[in-house]
Amino acid sequence: MQKEFELVATDRHSKARRGCLTTAHGAIDTPAFIPIGTQGSVKGVSPRELRELNAQIVLGNTYHLFVRPGLDVIKHFGGLHNFMNWDGPILTDSGGFQIFSLAKLRKITEDGVEFQNHIDGTRAFISPEIAMEIQTALGGDITMTLDECVPYPCEYDYAAQSTEMTARWAKRCRQWKRLNSETAGRELAGPSTRRFADSFLFGIVQGATFENLRRENAQAIVDLDFDGYAIGGVSVGEPEDEMMRAVEWAELSLPGNKPRYAMGLGTPPQLLELIARGMDMFDCVLPTRLARNGTAFTAKGTVNLKNAEFILDKNPIEQNCACDACREFSRGYIRHLIKAEEILGLRLITLHNLHFYLNLMSQARTEIEQGTFDQFRKAFVAEYKTRDAVAIE
Amino acid sequence: MQKEFELVATDRHSKARRGCLTTAHGAIDTPAFIPIGTQGSVKGVSPRELRELNAQIVLGNTYHLFVRPGLDVIKHFGGLHNFMNWDGPILTDSGGFQIFSLAKLRKITEDGVEFQNHIDGTRAFISPEIAMEIQTALGGDITMTLDECVPYPCEYDYAAQSTEMTARWAKRCRQWKRLNSETAGRELAGPSTRRFADSFLFGIVQGATFENLRRENAQAIVDLDFDGYAIGGVSVGEPEDEMMRAVEWAELSLPGNKPRYAMGLGTPPQLLELIARGMDMFDCVLPTRLARNGTAFTAKGTVNLKNAEFILDKNPIEQNCACDACREFSRGYIRHLIKAEEILGLRLITLHNLHFYLNLMSQARTEIEQGTFDQFRKAFVAEYKTRDAVAIE
Repeated sequence: MQKEFELVATDRHSKARRGCLTTAHGAIDTPAFIPIGTQGSVKGVSPRELRELNAQIVLGNTYHLFVRPGLDVIKHFGGLHNFMNWDGPILTDSGGFQIFSLAKLRKITEDGVEFQNHIDGTRAFISPEIAMEIQTALGGDITMTLDECVPYPCEYDYAAQSTEMTARWAKRCRQWKRLNSETAGRELAGPSTRRFADSFLFGIVQGATFENLRRENAQAIVDLDFDGYAIGGVSVGEPEDEMMRAVEWAELSLPGNKPRYAMGLGTPPQLLELIARGMDMFDCVLPTRLARNGTAFTAKGTVNLKNAEFILDKNPIEQNCACDACREFSRGYIRHLIKAEEILGLRLITLHNLHFYLNLMSQARTEIEQGTFDQFRKAFVAEYKTRDAVAIE
Repeated sequence: MQKEFELVATDRHSKARRGCLTTAHGAIDTPAFIPIGTQGSVKGVSPRELRELNAQIVLGNTYHLFVRPGLDVIKHFGGLHNFMNWDGPILTDSGGFQIFSLAKLRKITEDGVEFQNHIDGTRAFISPEIAMEIQTALGGDITMTLDECVPYPCEYDYAAQSTEMTARWAKRCRQWKRLNSETAGRELAGPSTRRFADSFLFGIVQGATFENLRRENAQAIVDLDFDGYAIGGVSVGEPEDEMMRAVEWAELSLPGNKPRYAMGLGTPPQLLELIARGMDMFDCVLPTRLARNGTAFTAKGTVNLKNAEFILDKNPIEQNCACDACREFSRGYIRHLIKAEEILGLRLITLHNLHFYLNLMSQARTEIEQGTFDQFRKAFVAEYKTRDAVAIE
């Protein structure tokens, strides 16, 4: 299959788009939610369950997999698809975000980043070129440029210098791929073998919360001509309105015929708001991470199933939900499992939450096709209560 | 369905029996392994997975469920079948074993046991009659008499007195059931409703490691005329040969036309040796508990998948194993998951281990039918290496 991004429909009332990304491992309908398989497994669920959830793509975290089990192991198994037994598309990040959030003793130079990993403190060095080599070895269908993700708040001068370096790193990634497209990735064995040239390379826009940096960096990244564009450095602690503005500023420069990926986002209403701002792809730990704490997503907001009010509740997590957890189990039973620290409890909430996110994207796609996305978004956001104020029916 | 136990075949070279237990929730082919669903969930697996594993019965621990979520909750949901969404047979124990192993500040009198639970220290009292009431509320298809499980080693005098009390408690349980058969359990709602009279009540033989106590207690329990007989107080720390002898002594008094259940046992070779000694049913935490530590069962013995030798191993846990974990995943990947503390790792080993135990019972049934059980048992035991001496191919 030739890599391709096709726009199927666009919304008249917003920048929302309905598209389809074709990769060597299958198609991804956009707007798309990408479950996070940090260490080669989406926490709590099996590849079979992901297929049953109609997940079309998963994310593998380059930093985590580089640290453990290590590249030699994954190469030995013929790449991440074979290793984790997932034959659908995989997006690999560059590792940058985790180097800047998890690793110790980072030293950033124009060349790249030296760091000690958070597991055993082993030193390593990742440059833009090495980030590409690693992602090639993993076999990602969508790969990302190495960027520096600055914290919030961030001084303007530091952000400006960092953003310029991120653009130079992006250029080196782009250059590396041009030079290595035909040769890289050939060692990957088995059914997932394909030319590295068929993978997407997305450029990442940084610029912190500064309008001119976001605009300039987006233009600089777009000038390098990537297969898609990601907006990074958002949801790092800034208020939601600053996050939305950062996306809006960057989006102005992004070409319409390429997919756009808002990294590390977000809550269900945020996803709809970002779709309305022209974003196509999202990844977020919320559905899996909150599940492990007993928190489930519903159209009315999150509910924490540990609460005593659910002890005798025979209803499913959410009425009319089609997920396996809701078709088979009650809130009362799931609450008991979570309180008793039974693994099945977090498995069931994880299944429900992933279904919720994936189904929300499916609904959004249908609404865009039918020209009703704007009403859908407004109604959903109005109905959805944020976590602290959530009212349970 | 009328409760029934039918002997299908018996072995000429040993006491091994091939039978079938019919309960209101379905049939159980014996010899049978019973996965343990301590707190209303077999740790790590879903009811759907249990069905796919061809598990025909699960065990619910009365003590654990009595402590949490509590009887009122399970009654509210119409019994344990409905609560945990398992429509197959359930065996409930009496709670005795956990009162004697987990609870604090136990006070045993002829009346029953007063104790503080291990979760929040709440005081409770369980008598033989209350143990029956609780199991009725849970809705067990096979219920157990309340017994005192003495530790190993145990003074003869204490064991003798305790064993006699266990027999008197068994009589009270039998009496309670006679008086309440037609009325108890009527409050259970939903599709699992059935008469309590249809449930099996098993008497438990105690007697520590003393021949005369085991023989006398077995005869006393048999004289009370139960639907089946269990051998308790084994695998409490005694050497394996003492355990085997305790079973042998008790078995001498057990009628051939009733099912026999060796409680809390054992390793795969132990199960085959106990089948050869006339036992029909087993429950054991080993397959699920060891899985959570990365240990898998194979025909050659246990393997700990955390070992470095498996890092690059592309083989399944066990060659030619038909379980989902072995059909889809490599030892190397499962090792990575266990090392990275990913839930999927323990899920996959749990699936494999339960499959191993259930499949071993299925094989034993076939071998008994074909008259080849004795060779099968000897060959299996010779091939199986105990844990510390295990050699990995």
